[in-house]
Amino acid sequence: MTASPEPTSERHDAVEVIVAKRDGGTLTDSQIDWVVDAYTRGAVADEQMSSLAMAILLNGMDRREIARWTDAMIASGERMDFSSLSRPTADKHSTGGVGDKITLPLAPLVAACGVAVPQLSGRGLGHTGGTLDKLEAIPGWRAALSNEELMAQLESVGAVICAAGDGLAPADKKLYALRDVTGTVEAIPLIASSIMSKKIAEGTGSLVLDVKVGTGAFMKSLDRARELAETMVALGTGAGVHTVALLTDMSTPLGLTAGNAIEVAESVEVLAGGGPSDVVELTLALAREMLAGAGRDDIDPAEKLADGSAMDAWKAMIRAQGGDPDAALPVARESHVVVAPSSGVLTRLDAMAVGLAAWRLGAGRARKEDPVQAGAGVVWHARPGDEVTAGAPLFTLLTDDAGRFDRALASLDGGFDIEPAGTAYSPAPLVIERVG
Amino acid sequence: MTASPEPTSERHDAVEVIVAKRDGGTLTDSQIDWVVDAYTRGAVADEQMSSLAMAILLNGMDRREIARWTDAMIASGERMDFSSLSRPTADKHSTGGVGDKITLPLAPLVAACGVAVPQLSGRGLGHTGGTLDKLEAIPGWRAALSNEELMAQLESVGAVICAAGDGLAPADKKLYALRDVTGTVEAIPLIASSIMSKKIAEGTGSLVLDVKVGTGAFMKSLDRARELAETMVALGTGAGVHTVALLTDMSTPLGLTAGNAIEVAESVEVLAGGGPSDVVELTLALAREMLAGAGRDDIDPAEKLADGSAMDAWKAMIRAQGGDPDAALPVARESHVVVAPSSGVLTRLDAMAVGLAAWRLGAGRARKEDPVQAGAGVVWHARPGDEVTAGAPLFTLLTDDAGRFDRALASLDGGFDIEPAGTAYSPAPLVIERVG
Repeated sequence: MTASPEPTSERHDAVEVIVAKRDGGTLTDSQIDWVVDAYTRGAVADEQMSSLAMAILLNGMDRREIARWTDAMIASGERMDFSSLSRPTADKHSTGGVGDKITLPLAPLVAACGVAVPQLSGRGLGHTGGTLDKLEAIPGWRAALSNEELMAQLESVGAVICAAGDGLAPADKKLYALRDVTGTVEAIPLIASSIMSKKIAEGTGSLVLDVKVGTGAFMKSLDRARELAETMVALGTGAGVHTVALLTDMSTPLGLTAGNAIEVAESVEVLAGGGPSDVVELTLALAREMLAGAGRDDIDPAEKLADGSAMDAWKAMIRAQGGDPDAALPVARESHVVVAPSSGVLTRLDAMAVGLAAWRLGAGRARKEDPVQAGAGVVWHARPGDEVTAGAPLFTLLTDDAGRFDRALASLDGGFDIEPAGTAYSPAPLVIERVG
Repeated sequence: MTASPEPTSERHDAVEVIVAKRDGGTLTDSQIDWVVDAYTRGAVADEQMSSLAMAILLNGMDRREIARWTDAMIASGERMDFSSLSRPTADKHSTGGVGDKITLPLAPLVAACGVAVPQLSGRGLGHTGGTLDKLEAIPGWRAALSNEELMAQLESVGAVICAAGDGLAPADKKLYALRDVTGTVEAIPLIASSIMSKKIAEGTGSLVLDVKVGTGAFMKSLDRARELAETMVALGTGAGVHTVALLTDMSTPLGLTAGNAIEVAESVEVLAGGGPSDVVELTLALAREMLAGAGRDDIDPAEKLADGSAMDAWKAMIRAQGGDPDAALPVARESHVVVAPSSGVLTRLDAMAVGLAAWRLGAGRARKEDPVQAGAGVVWHARPGDEVTAGAPLFTLLTDDAGRFDRALASLDGGFDIEPAGTAYSPAPLVIERVG
């Protein structure tokens, strides 16, 4: 850990900074340093920061402002340093999507290729739990590690997925909670600086960003996703982190499961050399980018899936954090099967509809203090392009509380299309574009 | 007093309302009713309302939204009712300017014409104190009246200038304090609804708005002043209050004084039939509008100034509130004379420069809990168009604290122009436009 630099001593006034951005101006470095530091200290009030956040959302920030804002958030806390490790480091961040369990097979896979993966995660408010919630479905596994444990596990196992400490970018933590309740989440400068401040402070040598686009993603349009990706790649590159982004499809959910334990099970299938082809494809695409970023593009990650070394890394990673990788996973108490209403080809499965159903079944949380149900979620038995038969299972809904089925079923209404057999179906590419 | 109507029971969510306005939509009546009521109750937090206020400032509101917002603020408190009085009522509101003491001669003048003037004022954060601060320079005078005292004085004297109670539009009081610290004061929908909610709740039968334009005014451009005036006239008219606005010049300060006691003295000169011609002109113009609004345009207010009946009403008004209209006014302990640097014609005297000087001398307040100095202020000895002589007094600065002179003098730098004798000077009209 290195100490955070002292904030600039030049003084400003909250209203002056707000008015500058409100009136379409750019903020000076000194204004940005001051307002982020003063907000972290409590000298700028929540109601002032939220008004500034709305002005930023509506009037934007240029690249210099975003970079400075990111630096100021990094300076609010500690920075980690992995340079003492014997191997290079690479991290991955996804902007989040339905059925996105990619981190689970990816981290041990990349570790098996000789690159250390320090995956520090938050919990968030998604349709399902975050990566930590999914892993907590494994009996005994714990998310909290000390910095010493983290470093030791990175050296020995090569992969860590754990809770980010409170020391990284505390300004972001406070600002994120504020944005959540003030309608100011959707500002690209604030999203980009929030993600990148934590990743840069974390100290990874290289970073791959999976920026999702589509109905089940935060970014619904390709243009906005590209803008976010380009902004984050510029921030990472400017901070000396080798950074690349992939824009990937999130109109259709990933794999065949959205939940917690059921996504762990699907990830283990991938590590065993099987699993849904889209999950395998995206895991390998991201692994190749991480290896290239870490200077190890001589290694083919597909071989490490095939030869079992990724699975070995997974088991070592789970065991190192107290989990039993061979234990049975929790199962939901109640299940409900939805059958296909007609025969034909499944031509559309909407990520948002599936995500909302999983959330309503208890797989995600509405408030950050809520628990998630480990066994809850949605399994779909066909993916777009597959043939389906009237009366055969299309979805299995899982929950501990049967009272949740009705609202979950309602969210699947209109969430898929079945067209007559023989209808042409051309799948959209999973990896849409590469930025970096 | 009538009870406020119950707010709508339909429920909304703060983020939903913020996002609707943020994304350029119009708010529904139900959303507006809910958010204003919930904010007043504390169910919508300050940081949510400030984010909404910034979205309103940047994305605007249409006339329906502004009218509904105003109604919701009125519904947050009590409404007064003057229909039991034996005479019609007329009120005036000024958006504020430097040397604007017009309320002081105007209220007793209109009362002398047979129309009751219920002037309920706040204190504000202007260059000089508000109307209440000016009157408090008169020994014994008190601003606080009970509702019974207010009604009795309106019936007997016909004019009351007093502090508005906390019962009128409490939502506005809370919102105004929030806007002040969050850079969201300058939103025309919020300015218009703030002013008009209080005036409509007050229950006046007719209303004249003096909307100031120029360097010393809140509205620097004629276009924005006109938009504000039209918005307020529409709100008043829609609520059944006969409402007219005059757009008047505030590039040059009004009269020859900016302060508290010195503005009272100048007002008394006007009531005695003298005083600066611009103060007399604007007082009469506003009086004629108030009389017309109250259906008494058969009366010429100039006669009531000339025959002493306005002065009689003034003295009765001051005495009714405990003041001695014949007592000596407070005098500042220190004075400093600024002489004209050259001979010629004064062609410009900047209202902002004079206002800032008066404020720095102690005539106004920086924070709402600060006191004002009764004797402090600026007297100018020439008005634009007047000839001045090098070495003769141009300004007299007044304060209780000689340490304030330096900064006050600095604010007058560049605040006036003297051009060679014989330079043509054509004064701008004082009343620029009438809306209504």
